[in-house]
Amino acid sequence: MLTFIGLGLYDERSVTVAGRDALRDADRAFAEFYTSRLVGADVDALEAHHGVDIEVRDRAGVEQHPEPILDGAAAGDAVFLTAGDPMISTTHVDLRLRARERGIDTRLIHGPTAASAASGLTGLQNYRFGKATTLPFPAAHGGDGVPESVGETIDANRERGLHTLVYLDIKVGEQRVGDADTDRYMTADEAADLLATHYEDTLGVAVARAGSPDPVVEADRLSALAERDFGAPLHLLVVPGDLHHLEAEALRTFGGAPDAVVDERTV
Amino acid sequence: MLTFIGLGLYDERSVTVAGRDALRDADRAFAEFYTSRLVGADVDALEAHHGVDIEVRDRAGVEQHPEPILDGAAAGDAVFLTAGDPMISTTHVDLRLRARERGIDTRLIHGPTAASAASGLTGLQNYRFGKATTLPFPAAHGGDGVPESVGETIDANRERGLHTLVYLDIKVGEQRVGDADTDRYMTADEAADLLATHYEDTLGVAVARAGSPDPVVEADRLSALAERDFGAPLHLLVVPGDLHHLEAEALRTFGGAPDAVVDERTV
Repeated sequence: MLTFIGLGLYDERSVTVAGRDALRDADRAFAEFYTSRLVGADVDALEAHHGVDIEVRDRAGVEQHPEPILDGAAAGDAVFLTAGDPMISTTHVDLRLRARERGIDTRLIHGPTAASAASGLTGLQNYRFGKATTLPFPAAHGGDGVPESVGETIDANRERGLHTLVYLDIKVGEQRVGDADTDRYMTADEAADLLATHYEDTLGVAVARAGSPDPVVEADRLSALAERDFGAPLHLLVVPGDLHHLEAEALRTFGGAPDAVVDERTV
Repeated sequence: MLTFIGLGLYDERSVTVAGRDALRDADRAFAEFYTSRLVGADVDALEAHHGVDIEVRDRAGVEQHPEPILDGAAAGDAVFLTAGDPMISTTHVDLRLRARERGIDTRLIHGPTAASAASGLTGLQNYRFGKATTLPFPAAHGGDGVPESVGETIDANRERGLHTLVYLDIKVGEQRVGDADTDRYMTADEAADLLATHYEDTLGVAVARAGSPDPVVEADRLSALAERDFGAPLHLLVVPGDLHHLEAEALRTFGGAPDAVVDERTV
């Protein structure tokens, strides 16, 4: 059996009780932290808290050489851990398909996601979000500024009055760019600065540390957000579409949005 | 302090460990189950499992008369429980704003959502979903069939190749329609039957009991799904847009989709 478990958004206690129990009962535990990570707990802390050994796999160790994971799942109860929810990337669907090809049963134990946290923390209604997008580091796509696909997503959503959740790039481990010797997480101010070249006066909402005990939500023009510092990662950025009355009120109350900036988008 | 806690998708153990601890430490616990509910645990089971008393509020008791909740939060640590994630409806943003107006601190403890479960279970990629919509019981909107707004959402998403998550109506407690004497949950086959009047040969994916130990995923033409029985609630329906190769493979493998139906949507 291969059980995919979402660890949730922050630390050892962000996993569901069902997920925690499955982790503790497993014969082997694998994990990946290249799509996201828990900012409130490292692997040692997870191992100590749950009393388990965790085998961390890099991208190649999941996508190209998943055999050790599949062997573990064929021989007993294996779990595969990710931050957030376990099925947020193609990769893990691929791993689940490969398990099934080998006749291994699979199961999902869902976790809270950054997408629902961004909606909840900002007060922007979940059913008024359109397609999400990811803003890469400029070096990562071989050009400067904002890839065309990101702008197209934001524009297409705004035409329909919808909000856009912008995931921000992370470069960890073997994905590090150039001679960087530390992991890099794009900040909401970097993202606002990139987007401000196309959408200078547009309302944006920075969300830092969603799911942690000290999340930050700040709403203002992108050009203003670009000048701020939202502290430790992980960050997200939301580009709202039209605002309903309660959404506008939430951005003012929880995000400190200036009246003038919010009023011009309220319908 | 008012802490909003998402109970997750199925039973007593679908809440995060952080959420469970906050519930158990609270001075008073309120809950609503009119937006969704846990199919694997009733209120008695939650109370017994966590050793707490839970005061269940109906819609009027949250939206129009929230004073008891706010009084509890002003006097001590109160928690407000919902299935899934706590901020999936306008109502709860409103409650959070009212708390803030009274100077009460608020906090969110996120839970897994049906939206991420639907993406994970079907293998459809989360960033390829457009705006979501809700399909109401025909009687609830005073007409027959499918409201125009639902069709518009599906069509606008499909034009961009995006998937649509269709939440299905529930009528519980005082929202029951006519002389119904039991709670009603729209099933995926009812939903497929309604949508098949406009989209007969279109691919749909029924998801039953997302987040439970026995979820069901079945992918086929809407007219075929309309003839099936997916068992106990809660159900969802997804109307896919274009399918990438891995998504098509997942719908065949995990949803039993016929090759011909999947192939015609694969890009």
